[in-house]
Amino acid sequence: MNLPVKNAVVLLSGGLDSATTLAIAKSEGFECYALSADYGQRHRVELDAAARVAQALGARAHRVFRIDLAAFGGSALTDPSIAVPEKPAEGIPVTYVPARNTILLSLALAWAEVLGANDIFIGANAVDYSGYPDCRPEYLQAFEAMANLATRAAVEGARMAIHAPLVDLPKAQIIRRGANLGVDFGLTVSCYQPDPEGRACGRCDSCRLRRAGFAAAGVPDPTRYPP
Amino acid sequence: MNLPVKNAVVLLSGGLDSATTLAIAKSEGFECYALSADYGQRHRVELDAAARVAQALGARAHRVFRIDLAAFGGSALTDPSIAVPEKPAEGIPVTYVPARNTILLSLALAWAEVLGANDIFIGANAVDYSGYPDCRPEYLQAFEAMANLATRAAVEGARMAIHAPLVDLPKAQIIRRGANLGVDFGLTVSCYQPDPEGRACGRCDSCRLRRAGFAAAGVPDPTRYPP
Repeated sequence: MNLPVKNAVVLLSGGLDSATTLAIAKSEGFECYALSADYGQRHRVELDAAARVAQALGARAHRVFRIDLAAFGGSALTDPSIAVPEKPAEGIPVTYVPARNTILLSLALAWAEVLGANDIFIGANAVDYSGYPDCRPEYLQAFEAMANLATRAAVEGARMAIHAPLVDLPKAQIIRRGANLGVDFGLTVSCYQPDPEGRACGRCDSCRLRRAGFAAAGVPDPTRYPP
Repeated sequence: MNLPVKNAVVLLSGGLDSATTLAIAKSEGFECYALSADYGQRHRVELDAAARVAQALGARAHRVFRIDLAAFGGSALTDPSIAVPEKPAEGIPVTYVPARNTILLSLALAWAEVLGANDIFIGANAVDYSGYPDCRPEYLQAFEAMANLATRAAVEGARMAIHAPLVDLPKAQIIRRGANLGVDFGLTVSCYQPDPEGRACGRCDSCRLRRAGFAAAGVPDPTRYPP
């Protein structure tokens, strides 16, 4: 008996969270179409990481969509004149990229509609995270509500679901979940300012959250740092 | 006394509706930042039209954002193998571009946040239109609700408004409104498949709606057709 194929679009940055999200989607039986964005980010080695992760976890396809968010600026991740902070600070940090997840989810929505997919996965997390507004559950719910009015598929009765399976998990639990699903975290890059070989700075917000997560999870940390 | 500057991002396709929308935003006192998208559409002469309209109507800036929606396909406007229909048909036509307005509004949201603008204008219309789901008022309201959870500006208390001043107007009223505001409709291109000189086919859905609108409005129709 053949089960019907369920396609899903999975946003894949190349970091730890999105790799785990892809593994979860696969474990739930989805044929996964991984979508990365080359959005002018300074940490572009993450795109190579995304390609490795997509292949290792058996994504059906991996597409890197070019979109020049650096043209808008306004973020340390897209504007070289704004330094990546290396100490925790109050409020939403300068690494926030204006409307990034809204743009990425919109692209995923377009691809999903063309594929006939009713499911989009995103590795957003609102526990051990940088305080980005577009990682919060209430935002993701609002996007889903909008998506269900936006498309021909919706008008014709399909229901689009935005899955954020990590949204309520501490980083350590994400790491354990990924490890149990066989994610090779050595393929992933979380650092906001890795060197050209993909080695992590160890000082940015993303590095700090990652390092603490591995320690708390009791999982060996494969992150590469410069000697 | 100097009034505070109010910035707005205005989506500008180069057609009649978005030109009128830009004129309305200007008439309401906004400094207008016009945003067009080169999304792989077959009717790219509309981008030249957008540039002319932005200049004629005094936009503060005009930016053409490149985004390759043709990579996803699924529409007669982005896939040369799907013909533009030249007769009315039931349902949502094949000129629908998956998630187009969601992507365009997301880009507008990003630019608005960087500019410190709390207002986005879109020429969506749900009366004399092609039945696109992402032109309906309920969709636009859902996008606005999502946008107000998506950004740092929203978290910090700003309220983003999505303005669709044409949404409930018949085409003839849009044309009269634009004419009263001094829009030179001769600069605009509505046709889905204009020739390289920007002359309209006269047969596609968009041409039919435009031609009927000018006739009903009693406004001279400057549309150029091939001899």
